[in-house]
Amino acid sequence: MTGTLSVIGLGPGDQRYLTEDASDALHAAEAIYGYRPYLDRIPIRSHQIHYPSENREEGLRAAAAIRHAVRGHNVAVVSGGDPGVFAMAAAVCEAIDTGPEEWRTLDVEFVPGITAMLAVAARIGAPLGHDFCALSLSDNLKPWELIEQRLDAAANAGFVIALYNPVSRARPWQFGRAIERLRRHLPTTTPLVFGRAVGRTDEQIKMVTLDAAETASADMATLVIVGSRETRVVVRPGREPLVYTPRAVAEVSA
Amino acid sequence: MTGTLSVIGLGPGDQRYLTEDASDALHAAEAIYGYRPYLDRIPIRSHQIHYPSENREEGLRAAAAIRHAVRGHNVAVVSGGDPGVFAMAAAVCEAIDTGPEEWRTLDVEFVPGITAMLAVAARIGAPLGHDFCALSLSDNLKPWELIEQRLDAAANAGFVIALYNPVSRARPWQFGRAIERLRRHLPTTTPLVFGRAVGRTDEQIKMVTLDAAETASADMATLVIVGSRETRVVVRPGREPLVYTPRAVAEVSA
Repeated sequence: MTGTLSVIGLGPGDQRYLTEDASDALHAAEAIYGYRPYLDRIPIRSHQIHYPSENREEGLRAAAAIRHAVRGHNVAVVSGGDPGVFAMAAAVCEAIDTGPEEWRTLDVEFVPGITAMLAVAARIGAPLGHDFCALSLSDNLKPWELIEQRLDAAANAGFVIALYNPVSRARPWQFGRAIERLRRHLPTTTPLVFGRAVGRTDEQIKMVTLDAAETASADMATLVIVGSRETRVVVRPGREPLVYTPRAVAEVSA
Repeated sequence: MTGTLSVIGLGPGDQRYLTEDASDALHAAEAIYGYRPYLDRIPIRSHQIHYPSENREEGLRAAAAIRHAVRGHNVAVVSGGDPGVFAMAAAVCEAIDTGPEEWRTLDVEFVPGITAMLAVAARIGAPLGHDFCALSLSDNLKPWELIEQRLDAAANAGFVIALYNPVSRARPWQFGRAIERLRRHLPTTTPLVFGRAVGRTDEQIKMVTLDAAETASADMATLVIVGSRETRVVVRPGREPLVYTPRAVAEVSA
C-alpha cells in the first residue's frame, strides 16, 4: 500500500488566494500537518485529523508527515504562501534526502501558492515589475556575513529585493543592520514597501523611503520590498501612491 | 461615473492554478484585454467583450484598457502567471505614470497569480527553497551588458536564478550566452531545471547539469531555474529526481 504526501501552499491570509488545485488537495487529505496558525485557517472536515506544530520545527514536522504517508495514508503538509519559498517543500526534500531509503519511493507532490512578495506587490502596484530577488534575513540557517554579501550584490546589480523574515523575537537587530547596509548602495529616496498580514483583516501596507525606513515598523509577519534605482512612485490625488519598477532599463549604471 | 481596472494573474496553464480572487475579478469584468493566447484560455461570457492583442504591445494594451475603464466601465487586463512579474502590472503603472492626469484617479486593482517559477519549482521539488532571484533574459528592454552583470552578481552571491524569457525568435543567441556566462561561476554539476508549458497538456519538465545544458532545449514558453552551489539532486528509484536547495547554508564560500 502506498501513501501520498502533498505539500500545499495556502497563499497569504484568507481563502481568496487559494488555488483550485490547493483546495482539491486539501479536501483529499486524511491528515494535515502544519505550523499551528496555518492549520487554524483550514476548516477541519469529519474525515481529517490536524497535527499542529510550532515554528522552527520544520524538520521534525516534515519527518512526521512522511512517516505517516509511508504507512499508506494521504497526508498533507501546509505552508502559508508558497511551500517552495522559504517553507516546507525544502524541509520535505531534505528529510527525504537524508532519511531512510524507502522514503524515496513515496509519492510526493508540491502544490504552489501565492507567495507573500507577490501579494504585497499587488497591493501597491508592480514593485517586482523588473529583475528582483528574494532573500531571507533569518540567520538561524546561514551566517550573517553571507546575508550582507547578498544584500550588497543584489542592491549593486540593480535587483529589487524582497526581504522575507525581516525580524523575529530572537533576531531583533538584523533588519536594522540590513537597512544600514542598503543605505551604502541605494539613494535615500529609494522606495520601500512594508506589507504586514496581507489578505487578513489587520492588513497594513505602507510605503516609505530608505532614509525614513523605521526598523521598528517590521515584525515577524512583515514582508519588505526594497526598490532598485529604477523603482518609481506615482502620486495620486485622494488615493495611495502606486510603486512600480519599469519594464525597461535605459542604460547601465556605473 | 468611475470605472475600475483589474490587472489579473491567470497563473500558468489551466484553470486549476486560478485563485478564487482572480476568478471573481474575471467574472465581474465587462471587457477583458490581453495577449491573445491568454484570452483564449478564458471562456467568453454573454456580457463580456474580449480585446485580444499581440506580444510586445503591452504599452498600447495598457493604455487602451485604461481609456476604456476611465469611460466608466469595469475592465480587466490579464497576464499569464502573475501580472506583477515581467508582465502587465508594470505596463499599467507606467501608462498611468506617463499618461493624462485624470488616469491617476482611476480605481486600479492588481490580483496576484502563480508565477511560472513557482509552478516549475513545484513540479520538481524545491529548487527555490533558499535565496533566489528572477531575471529576464530579454534585451528588448535593457542592454545585454546589464544582463551579464546581473548573472555574474547573482551566481557569485549564491542565489538560485530563475530565467524568464530565455529565448525568442528575435533573440536566438541570448540563452546560449547566458549559459556560457554562468559556466564561469558555477560548477559543471550545477542542476538546471527546464520547465515548458507548465500546467498545460504538453508540459515538459527536465533536469540537466550545467555542463550538459543544451541551449536548444529552451523556447519562448520555457522557464529555466539555475541552481546555486548548494542545490541538491535526490535520485529516486522508479521516479523522477527531486531538485531542492536546502534551507541552511553552513559556511560562506570564498
